[in-house]
Amino acid sequence: MTTEPAFIDLLRKLATDPAARGLNDDAAVLTIGQQALVVTKDMLAEGVHFLAADPPADVAWKLVAVNVSDLAAKGATPLACLTGHTLSGDAAWDRAFVDGLGEALIHYGMMLIGGDTISAPVGTPRVLSLTAIGLPSVPVPPSRSGALAGDGLFVTGTIGDGWAGLQLLQKGKSAPPSLIAAYRRPQARIADGRALAPIAHAMMDVSDGLLIDAARMAGASNLAVRINLAKVPLSDDFVQTFGADQASALSAATGGDDYRLLFAADSEAHLPVAAQRVGSFSEGSGLSLVWNGLPVDLPKKLGWLHG
Amino acid sequence: MTTEPAFIDLLRKLATDPAARGLNDDAAVLTIGQQALVVTKDMLAEGVHFLAADPPADVAWKLVAVNVSDLAAKGATPLACLTGHTLSGDAAWDRAFVDGLGEALIHYGMMLIGGDTISAPVGTPRVLSLTAIGLPSVPVPPSRSGALAGDGLFVTGTIGDGWAGLQLLQKGKSAPPSLIAAYRRPQARIADGRALAPIAHAMMDVSDGLLIDAARMAGASNLAVRINLAKVPLSDDFVQTFGADQASALSAATGGDDYRLLFAADSEAHLPVAAQRVGSFSEGSGLSLVWNGLPVDLPKKLGWLHG
Repeated sequence: MTTEPAFIDLLRKLATDPAARGLNDDAAVLTIGQQALVVTKDMLAEGVHFLAADPPADVAWKLVAVNVSDLAAKGATPLACLTGHTLSGDAAWDRAFVDGLGEALIHYGMMLIGGDTISAPVGTPRVLSLTAIGLPSVPVPPSRSGALAGDGLFVTGTIGDGWAGLQLLQKGKSAPPSLIAAYRRPQARIADGRALAPIAHAMMDVSDGLLIDAARMAGASNLAVRINLAKVPLSDDFVQTFGADQASALSAATGGDDYRLLFAADSEAHLPVAAQRVGSFSEGSGLSLVWNGLPVDLPKKLGWLHG
Repeated sequence: MTTEPAFIDLLRKLATDPAARGLNDDAAVLTIGQQALVVTKDMLAEGVHFLAADPPADVAWKLVAVNVSDLAAKGATPLACLTGHTLSGDAAWDRAFVDGLGEALIHYGMMLIGGDTISAPVGTPRVLSLTAIGLPSVPVPPSRSGALAGDGLFVTGTIGDGWAGLQLLQKGKSAPPSLIAAYRRPQARIADGRALAPIAHAMMDVSDGLLIDAARMAGASNLAVRINLAKVPLSDDFVQTFGADQASALSAATGGDDYRLLFAADSEAHLPVAAQRVGSFSEGSGLSLVWNGLPVDLPKKLGWLHG
């Protein structure tokens, strides 16, 4: 059994060009002449990243949003994409998927320029992919590895809403529309990414969970990071449903599916967009947690871990 | 049940930018400033495009070759690619796949810059994809739709070898190495594509079969095409195994998996690479066949038709 990290280690030996960024970043940065392009490719599999019963238009939206979020994390504006689609044998599903794809492409101002469609063997779970190409706002888009000792760790917007929406939906409970929308129709933060790219020392999107993603940024930057859970920004709807205590903040910070931008910047930097400082980088390694100064044990799972 | 053509019709309504070429071409042509890029994305599914028992290094090679062949058909040189991989649960398979991927990337001079790897639910057939980006040799790469009435239809190299290799392998017969290689390790024709791009009025690669692909070029160009089956170039190994009569030529011309370049050019043009004239375009529509002047009925299947 190959795990995803083990397989990526194998691929990494082939991906030696700087454009690949060591397969450690949200996206590749390909420079052709004077033109930098940000290119990313994310897949969603039925039964893993979405459920067969999920509304197909929402699945299409999410496929687009998770890819555009990777572009946003590099300060890039979406330009064009190519789809990869295994036909489901369910014409209504496929039609609704294309409707949602169209909505998302218009929303993000991205053109569909190609792709491939195949009929997989009957009964195969759907495997959907997108390749997205974007134009960065700065010549060298921020990577995950540029954080400096002394930098603050910042996050744009609230954390945990997507996780909260999924929890409530799975339990069949009524959920505030903002939480359902955060889960089903996540928003990639293109404008935030463009504005932050010139001042962020390191930047990525929060897809698997604030803690695991912060730990990855610290690891890529060869630094330690300390997060104050009490500073994790929670939405009003989240707090009304789940509270704002330490356990709730921990759920929010490990739930994933946020698609907010996480970045390292000079603690004194003027931030061009609203962002909450949630932690600090220092010499050393590893992630540590506090709750307003008191140490907090690391949870068993720092986020949504794959394979 | 959605068929592939029906699904692509739905996508076509979203793909209105000229870069998409109406989703009728082998690849998209994206122009950024003065720089044109050729971008393609092809998938292979286990049980559809390859068999579980096929050597995994050959599957990887084929995944690269079919994508590079789309670049070659637009006169482009491969630059970079991103993979999409569902893990198989079989570590040896995955390792051998990466070995083959590395061989193919070196062979075609293409760098791996990113991609995504997911663990699909247990028992899911492997779904593999590649997105390949190339740089064209001419500012406006040839499409499928530019053939002119009076043009000749030409093909580079021999046709039918990949089909012949598969037939012999499936029957458990010994097969000449050239035919097995044509099936398992197809060669994308980058140099031919670059040389032909300036003079070809229309160009594509032969992937599904000479007849179906020629019919597509004629359809995209709003012309009729007539093919002389006696002119379809067959390799010595093909002829020694299958003969060179009309039925054999028809098998070769409908077998697919050739990855030779098919192009329309002025009948009097000086061709920069060796190519065989196999037919002619004229006003009208549809495909017709002859054998040295005598009409031949169209076969039921013009090539390898999907879903």
